[in-house]
Amino acid sequence: MTKPVATRFQAPPIDKLPEDIRARLLAVQEKSGFIPNVFLTLAYRVDEFRAFFAYHDALMEKEGGLSKADREMIVVATSSANSCEYCVIAHGAILRIRAKNPLIADQIAVNYRKAEITPRQRAMLDFAMKVCSEAHLISEEDFASLAKHGFSDDDIWDIGSIAALFALSNRMAHLTGMRANAEFYLMGRAPKK
Amino acid sequence: MTKPVATRFQAPPIDKLPEDIRARLLAVQEKSGFIPNVFLTLAYRVDEFRAFFAYHDALMEKEGGLSKADREMIVVATSSANSCEYCVIAHGAILRIRAKNPLIADQIAVNYRKAEITPRQRAMLDFAMKVCSEAHLISEEDFASLAKHGFSDDDIWDIGSIAALFALSNRMAHLTGMRANAEFYLMGRAPKK
Amino acid sequence: MTKPVATRFQAPPIDKLPEDIRARLLAVQEKSGFIPNVFLTLAYRVDEFRAFFAYHDALMEKEGGLSKADREMIVVATSSANSCEYCVIAHGAILRIRAKNPLIADQIAVNYRKAEITPRQRAMLDFAMKVCSEAHLISEEDFASLAKHGFSDDDIWDIGSIAALFALSNRMAHLTGMRANAEFYLMGRAPKK
Amino acid sequence: MTKPVATRFQAPPIDKLPEDIRARLLAVQEKSGFIPNVFLTLAYRVDEFRAFFAYHDALMEKEGGLSKADREMIVVATSSANSCEYCVIAHGAILRIRAKNPLIADQIAVNYRKAEITPRQRAMLDFAMKVCSEAHLISEEDFASLAKHGFSDDDIWDIGSIAALFALSNRMAHLTGMRANAEFYLMGRAPKK
Amino acid sequence: MTKPVATRFQAPPIDKLPEDIRARLLAVQEKSGFIPNVFLTLAYRVDEFRAFFAYHDALMEKEGGLSKADREMIVVATSSANSCEYCVIAHGAILRIRAKNPLIADQIAVNYRKAEITPRQRAMLDFAMKVCSEAHLISEEDFASLAKHGFSDDDIWDIGSIAALFALSNRMAHLTGMRANAEFYLMGRAPKK
Amino acid sequence: MTKPVATRFQAPPIDKLPEDIRARLLAVQEKSGFIPNVFLTLAYRVDEFRAFFAYHDALMEKEGGLSKADREMIVVATSSANSCEYCVIAHGAILRIRAKNPLIADQIAVNYRKAEITPRQRAMLDFAMKVCSEAHLISEEDFASLAKHGFSDDDIWDIGSIAALFALSNRMAHLTGMRANAEFYLMGRAPKK
Repeated sequence: MTKPVATRFQAPPIDKLPEDIRARLLAVQEKSGFIPNVFLTLAYRVDEFRAFFAYHDALMEKEGGLSKADREMIVVATSSANSCEYCVIAHGAILRIRAKNPLIADQIAVNYRKAEITPRQRAMLDFAMKVCSEAHLISEEDFASLAKHGFSDDDIWDIGSIAALFALSNRMAHLTGMRANAEFYLMGRAPKK
Repeated sequence: MTKPVATRFQAPPIDKLPEDIRARLLAVQEKSGFIPNVFLTLAYRVDEFRAFFAYHDALMEKEGGLSKADREMIVVATSSANSCEYCVIAHGAILRIRAKNPLIADQIAVNYRKAEITPRQRAMLDFAMKVCSEAHLISEEDFASLAKHGFSDDDIWDIGSIAALFALSNRMAHLTGMRANAEFYLMGRAPKK
Repeated sequence: MTKPVATRFQAPPIDKLPEDIRARLLAVQEKSGFIPNVFLTLAYRVDEFRAFFAYHDALMEKEGGLSKADREMIVVATSSANSCEYCVIAHGAILRIRAKNPLIADQIAVNYRKAEITPRQRAMLDFAMKVCSEAHLISEEDFASLAKHGFSDDDIWDIGSIAALFALSNRMAHLTGMRANAEFYLMGRAPKK
Repeated sequence: MTKPVATRFQAPPIDKLPEDIRARLLAVQEKSGFIPNVFLTLAYRVDEFRAFFAYHDALMEKEGGLSKADREMIVVATSSANSCEYCVIAHGAILRIRAKNPLIADQIAVNYRKAEITPRQRAMLDFAMKVCSEAHLISEEDFASLAKHGFSDDDIWDIGSIAALFALSNRMAHLTGMRANAEFYLMGRAPKK
Repeated sequence: MTKPVATRFQAPPIDKLPEDIRARLLAVQEKSGFIPNVFLTLAYRVDEFRAFFAYHDALMEKEGGLSKADREMIVVATSSANSCEYCVIAHGAILRIRAKNPLIADQIAVNYRKAEITPRQRAMLDFAMKVCSEAHLISEEDFASLAKHGFSDDDIWDIGSIAALFALSNRMAHLTGMRANAEFYLMGRAPKK
Repeated sequence: MTKPVATRFQAPPIDKLPEDIRARLLAVQEKSGFIPNVFLTLAYRVDEFRAFFAYHDALMEKEGGLSKADREMIVVATSSANSCEYCVIAHGAILRIRAKNPLIADQIAVNYRKAEITPRQRAMLDFAMKVCSEAHLISEEDFASLAKHGFSDDDIWDIGSIAALFALSNRMAHLTGMRANAEFYLMGRAPKK
């Protein structure tokens, strides 16, 4: 409880935040039982908070060619490449829940190339990692190769944009010294029944 | 005119875009004489467009400890490290104008360590590049070192956040194959008088 | 049960293994409730199995200036740098148990620089990572710096040797396609009471 | 005018230089309207000056399978990979003029993979970059691949040798702190008519 | 004679070592005319000494699909990638002798891709270098490609294990500051007759 | 004898070469007993040959603050970083002779940081390696640090220029597939008396 949400930058207390942001914090607390530190940390700047979560929701909460588990998988793989504690641990928890698979997040975080995923997911992650680490090398061959796995142009936009958004998010976590809430570590680890 | 704004993903024509986005495009066209391709490319997804520019404006258009030229300098240096044609060329133009210096953008793009800038700007760019390329190594020493150059915590947030936002932006430019408008290449190059 | 212990190289069944190796496997099964896959995988070559575990036990099971938790911490940090699924997940479990800390392993695996450890442990891991990734740069300065944290020469030998042994071990895991047993993922995650 | 040609090493004034070198400096001034700083900087050592420009002229001023614009393109691409301010800016100017294309140099400098060039030029630059950055990996496959684009062995020698010569030149510019003359920044930027 | 065997860690004098280790040292001295420093250095820890040489002998002294010269070639190539003075120079000597080729060790050490070896040996070294430097990328394609060159699964285990063992060995040499005995430099250099 | 001097590009036979070049080849043959392959390979282009050796002689054959052995040491260290077989082996031989030290070349080639050299030579090689591998990071601190070891500005020019010249030379050796003459391997290896 008394642990800091981040090692740098102290956002105002919740009751001093603008109404819309306070409402979002309370809603997530209601749903999850705690407030993930990313909300408390980014509330340091309210306009940037609003823009970040608008972007996030537009990419992560939608339906489409990628399942919600696929989207979280992209976050975990690229955030691990960026050594981002908050994102690997928090989104690892969400991935376990959305994939209903207690093992998948750790496998993706350590070495997605060996994880127990489908060839389609492997192709998705290969592209996400290229966007993450060497985006200047993206070429038409990548699009053709993803198309062979059944990804539409809109799916490819989603894969690339999620990797791009977490390139931002990982850097903000490093800048602020954001810490993953203790609750995330254990979420979704009970084997599916 | 007939050159594509990007090699992949075709946004709707301007008159099919939502009113707020169309208004923004027309406003920038009014002001600049042309519509920078980043607007036309990102309009492919209207919610993400809105979130991106809200984030952008919150960081780039404000006053504060960093001048607007400083902010553009961060964009050019980090975008060059990411080999991002659109951002180096478009923000290079804006940097020349805001700094009233026709040489600065090319110097920053090729090797900011040799550019004719102040030691304070050098410290700012060193930190921005760390956020860009090895953010997981950010430490308290970085904050102490920036403070010695007179940067407040809010300034450091700005430096880091601009580098983080363009980590996203550069990746979107690579994903979409976004091209810099021809107009940018020559803007701000006439020597100051 | 039916999942393969590794994707390549099939060791003989337990009852065909030499007596000493079979005894070790049964002992570890007795103690842990399952046989970690590293034993089943490396049993493909019995002489190398014996040499590996003799080396392992000489470094990991001893008392000395490093606690057993410290030793596991070195394994997790360097194995994560090597993207080794088996070692990060299996030794992560052992680290959680030995440190009596359900959060420490994931923190070390993602970014040990931000983990909640002591400055002495941080210095230990910095050196272990140097041995792991750029051992040719080891210099007298490293020894002096470790001595300031109270590490004896014997402790430094241990730190370096553990990093060196898992440089071997991680590569064997990659060579064999060794998989972490499902049991490891959840071990030691219940909060200490 | 009063800006230093380089931040380190001061060559003798022009009228103290040997006759052949002084003549070359005056000839280039006559032709260009100014003396590029590379001449003034390298005149610090007259024998090395003569050798450098003899090598340079043998490779850059000849006709052959590569156009003069092609040759400058190799210089700009590899010098950008080496973060060489002088060579990117000075040879960028020459490239714009020789290619009669005001946009090409900036495109090549930021990311040649996206520049508006022919597939043959792309293959040429891919090989030049290999010579620049990982020459020990050159293999027969590279020669075969270049031959398919119509490059003769002599053309390949030229591509490789230009990249090799500017590996030297870029390092001399970094050693001396050589600065690009202000005149170069604007040369060749007026659109072709 | 008076030169130190290593710059750090002083093992006990030979007559204080356990009988089995002393016997091994005297045997190698009898055979070679001197005691290679690896024996004197690793004797600092007798159990680890025994484990290391047991592992070493199991891999390096056996017959099989790889010749003894092949095995030494793997050691020289990977140890050079790790900048390990002791292993490159000592095993370079052994390689020259076992291959009866006075030139091969230096060629392998500097750039094995250009060494005068067979395509089969080239494939062997390519895989060994992958195990050495990026083992997390090992895939089924590597096994298929090695099989085409006639390597059995047991041969591949040997290649990978030798590279893995010297990943350990190179790091121990760097940790201890182990020095190659002067005798090794000249061994096997007289041309074959 | 019948071994090719290089795997690509066939220079004319000696008696078809221009008089000055033929004279140089015969002079070196007279002095050394054989013609080093660099002469035979680069003779493919006579003007470039003349420029290269003029540059080479200006830097390598002079007296000054650096001994001739120092100069060769720079060549061996940087050529090894570039994996250049010809230069490491040929200049390794010359280094052994000029330093009257049969061990020094191999030590420098494998890991100059551990070689038995003076602190002044270590500082010289650290700077040469910076010019070789990350010249864009050269700063005033480097000059100050070298001055503390007694290097004059002219010495620093020499160190940097030799590293720069062999940046060119190494790339030409890779381009041409140049091979070290067998004679070099054994030269200077007999211990000094």
